[in-house]
This record gives sequence, structure tokens and C-alpha cells, in this order.
Amino acid sequence: MGFLYTKNFNEQKERAMEGLRKALAEDKVDHDIIPLLEKINALDNYFTTSSCSGRISVMEMPHFGDKLNSLWLGKWHGEVVVEEVLEAVGRHSRGQLWFLVRSPILHVAAKTMEDAVKLLNLAIGLGFKYSNVKSISHKKLLVEIRSTERMDVPLGEDGELWIDEEYIGRIVNLANAQVRRFKGKLKRLEEEIARFNSQAP
Amino acid sequence: MGFLYTKNFNEQKERAMEGLRKALAEDKVDHDIIPLLEKINALDNYFTTSSCSGRISVMEMPHFGDKLNSLWLGKWHGEVVVEEVLEAVGRHSRGQLWFLVRSPILHVAAKTMEDAVKLLNLAIGLGFKYSNVKSISHKKLLVEIRSTERMDVPLGEDGELWIDEEYIGRIVNLANAQVRRFKGKLKRLEEEIARFNSQAP
Repeated sequence: MGFLYTKNFNEQKERAMEGLRKALAEDKVDHDIIPLLEKINALDNYFTTSSCSGRISVMEMPHFGDKLNSLWLGKWHGEVVVEEVLEAVGRHSRGQLWFLVRSPILHVAAKTMEDAVKLLNLAIGLGFKYSNVKSISHKKLLVEIRSTERMDVPLGEDGELWIDEEYIGRIVNLANAQVRRFKGKLKRLEEEIARFNSQAP
Repeated sequence: MGFLYTKNFNEQKERAMEGLRKALAEDKVDHDIIPLLEKINALDNYFTTSSCSGRISVMEMPHFGDKLNSLWLGKWHGEVVVEEVLEAVGRHSRGQLWFLVRSPILHVAAKTMEDAVKLLNLAIGLGFKYSNVKSISHKKLLVEIRSTERMDVPLGEDGELWIDEEYIGRIVNLANAQVRRFKGKLKRLEEEIARFNSQAP
């Protein structure tokens, strides 16, 4: 049984931080989540391994769930205006066309099981209700921080649209409300993580 | 640190099994998931605490995520025909109207962390990719088995419909394909759990 703590945690963290610095340099990290990542990585017993600040997107896929052959026609990490979405929808040509909202997702490695549970409980308490422990081994204890906001709306197939522009306006409004909601949760998490830090022994 | 095993596991299991027997007697358990629950509960180191075999539904809610004040206008644990969905949609009067697909979800208590990880890895390997460890304490180690199929489609608001019948036909087809997919996964899980059993020491 090696589930109580992560072996070589500090070496792993060093490698992860190197990867993060590279991703930041290449502008591959969602901007509005960077301060939160920095606050988590400032804690001795945690480091981030991947993150997405949440998004609205328009996606073409051969069939649902086939991510490998999917194509983003539009992707936004904040609120959108209907014209942007219509423009993306206009680029549709084949496969299934979907309008999607995905909540923020953060993967955070923890040094000990106690650290993992502490972060998990904080996240759930702040409204990240789908948070969980993603993987558990002596190689890694990974906490997944995830919220409930989500939309999966089929818009058409093989170039044909099933809905009208007015409908797209409606779902854009709903999606923007979800974005405001999860951005608020991210902000609160950032504040609480900063407090986490100062309480560390 | 008390995360390695669940205290009073056998007493907890006994109480949970009493609850399950009551739920079965009152016909409160989804029928097609019962054989799987039985196979899991036949294992010494696990017991189920809740389950849903997955569903398609039409729901009215004041606003997204407000489950408390939500109202199911229609709910099906298998494939649906479009007429059933249209009938449910016809009962809409106020709030937001959504067409939803939810994948199966099972909560399974495990005796030790090793048992939890073993089940988690089996589930992920069989396509239940959102599976995770839901809660970790000396009181309970809870594995959540969950798959990726999901739809969240806004249909209208305050009695007004935003889409036509043809669109409902389209999303019903997509939803039925998701149902076939997750039912197949449940079947494979049931087969593998049966094998799990015979390998137990």
C-alpha cells in the first residue's frame, strides 16, 4: 500500500513547473486562470498538472464523443456575442455540429492523501460539486476540481442546420449566464487558496 | 490518518443492504441495473449506496441547476419514441424547459483504499471515464462510477418553444444512441464484476 503520499513529490513538482513555464511562454495557458495556478503552485504540498478555465465552443464531430476527429469551429474562454457564434456555425460543413459549454477543470497533484482531501473538500464547498480524486497511486494523488455548468446542444448535421438564429441567441444567453457563474466560483477559489497558503505550517 | 480502510465496514454494509431491500420492495430501483447491484453487493469488500441506470428526461426548472424547484415532465430509463417526448414537452408551462440525457451513475463503498482503486481502474477501463473517488474518510471510501454520455438542450421558456418537432426528432435519435452506448457499458461492467468475484481470495 503506497496510497498515503506521493513518492518523489518534489522532483515531480519541479518537472511540472518546468512544463508550466514552457506553456506560459508559448501562451498556451488560459489567461484568467493563471493567478489561481500561481497561488496553488506557491503551496508546498500541491502542484497543478493541467487546467482549463472553462469555455463555450462550437464543434464539429463525426459522432458524439469522438474527440480525436473533432474540429473546433469556435472556442471562447469568456462570454460570447451571438455574431461570433453564428460566424462559427457558418463554417460548418460535415459531421455533427454541437454547441458546448464546459466548466473549468483543474488537475492538482497533492503530496499526501490528507492534502488531497483538504483541497477536495474546499473545492466542493465552493460550488465545484463534481470535484473528486481522479487517480490514486504511490506515483500520483490527483485532485480534479470541476463544476456543474455544462451544455451539449446539437445544432445540425452534414451542413444542414436544425435550428434558427433566434435559437442560437437564446442558448448564447444561457451559456453566458453559466460562464458568469463559473467565473465567480473560480474567483472565490482563488481567494480561499490564498488563505490556505498563509495557514500552512 | 484514517484513509486506508473504512471503520465498521460490515455494519455499514448491513444497513445499506437493508435500505436496498426496502427500496427494491417499494420498486424504487431502476430495473435494468438490479443484476449489477446484486453482483457488486455479493463482493465482500464493496457495497452500493445509490445508483441510477441513466436516463433521458424533459425537465422544467426556474433556472439552470436549481434542482430543488425542478419538475420532471417526462423521465425514461431506456430509449424513447419522439411522441413520448412531444407529450412531455406539451405539458410545459413555466420556467426553463430542458431536454436532458444523464449517464448511469453508481456509488460504491469500498472497504480499503486498495479495493477502491481496483474498482476505479476497472470502471475507467470499461469506458466509465468520469469515474472517480467521490469521498475519502475513515467513515467512507466512495467510488463513483460514471460515464461521459450527456445532453443538455434548452427547448424553451415560460410556455414558449424555441424549436420545432423535427428538431425534437433529431435530438431523440442522438439521445437514443447515447442510451444504447451506456447500456452496453453497463452490461460489460456487470460481466467483469462477476469475474472480479471469482478471483477474490
